[in-house]
Amino acid sequence: MKIFSESESNVLEEIILNRRDVRGNRFLDKQIPQAELDKILQAAVNAPSVGFSQPWEFVIIKDKHKKAAIKANFDAAKQREQTIFKESREEQYQALKLEGIHEAPINIAVFYKPSCGPVLGQSQMQEAGLYSVVCAVQNMWLMSRALNIGLGWVSILEPDAVKKVLNAPSENQLVAYLCLGYVDHFYTHPELEKLHWEKRKDFSQLVFNDTY
Amino acid sequence: MKIFSESESNVLEEIILNRRDVRGNRFLDKQIPQAELDKILQAAVNAPSVGFSQPWEFVIIKDKHKKAAIKANFDAAKQREQTIFKESREEQYQALKLEGIHEAPINIAVFYKPSCGPVLGQSQMQEAGLYSVVCAVQNMWLMSRALNIGLGWVSILEPDAVKKVLNAPSENQLVAYLCLGYVDHFYTHPELEKLHWEKRKDFSQLVFNDTY
Repeated sequence: MKIFSESESNVLEEIILNRRDVRGNRFLDKQIPQAELDKILQAAVNAPSVGFSQPWEFVIIKDKHKKAAIKANFDAAKQREQTIFKESREEQYQALKLEGIHEAPINIAVFYKPSCGPVLGQSQMQEAGLYSVVCAVQNMWLMSRALNIGLGWVSILEPDAVKKVLNAPSENQLVAYLCLGYVDHFYTHPELEKLHWEKRKDFSQLVFNDTY
Repeated sequence: MKIFSESESNVLEEIILNRRDVRGNRFLDKQIPQAELDKILQAAVNAPSVGFSQPWEFVIIKDKHKKAAIKANFDAAKQREQTIFKESREEQYQALKLEGIHEAPINIAVFYKPSCGPVLGQSQMQEAGLYSVVCAVQNMWLMSRALNIGLGWVSILEPDAVKKVLNAPSENQLVAYLCLGYVDHFYTHPELEKLHWEKRKDFSQLVFNDTY
């Protein structure tokens, strides 16, 4: 069996620490080769899944009209979300660039496809199927970064509207909408930390021993 | 900014391909050093999170009585789940080892802690908070494998029962219950694939271009 060395685990640590959520202000107008896209999708389908159900589907979006329809939905959703923040925070929110739908050469909509039969391990926690898809997304994110490709997860979207644009089967559930592209720069810290939108939490407050 | 080389992205690919879900039949009676556990937890808190909300909490469980209470809940849940499979599949299910609660020196319960205020990016997709926690779990899984430590995700549990055992705040939501330990062996393929419980899906059937 494969034994990983300390230098190999250090590589993973570096990839994890250098992974960023990338928005349209950083994407370059440069195509992603098919071989790189395939590596990212292979990382996805080798994620863990509950009962080995592999409940994931991927729609690769390059079409400008599809992107425009999704961008319009984002714009409306951002307008609505803005109102939940007050005063200076609302102003700051308004100025934030929170997606890269048009700037990224590739968008990927990632869906949960419920299994037809019963799934081992999913009867007590139905969400485990959705969680499997999220594991796939995180694998894609790390592999993208390792290939020096930026990825941004856009969650300011109405899932049903995205499904309609992509003609998705009614039983499918949108888990993630991703924008991928090469970048001029990866920030050293999360953008929302850098902009003082949120502070990093104190690690010691997040870990408990044996009980709360 | 850090540019990763091809050999570095190949290391990540190897870690992803060699990651397995590990159960009690593979765990060794060998302690995990604190420094290794810290690396795994640091991988978790450096996962992406919606609006940089970092909505995760971790309970490290070593206590035998807590483990016994959780194992009892698993046993009852497995009995119930077994009945959803029919005939030969029910027999096969019954024989499967599906957790390593006692055999693993460390169990980790991973919770979603809802934020007090509004979270950027979470108004249209409330699940995005839970998904952030799953990203943290996948980082832990990969880091464990890179450190040659096995990890198994136990989803055959009643979340409310686990919360009660761990005295978790009512607003917290159990996302994952993990068993970690060194192993005698990592399988080359997922155990459920090896045992012909499920087949690997055909990659080409999972990817769509621009529309379904």
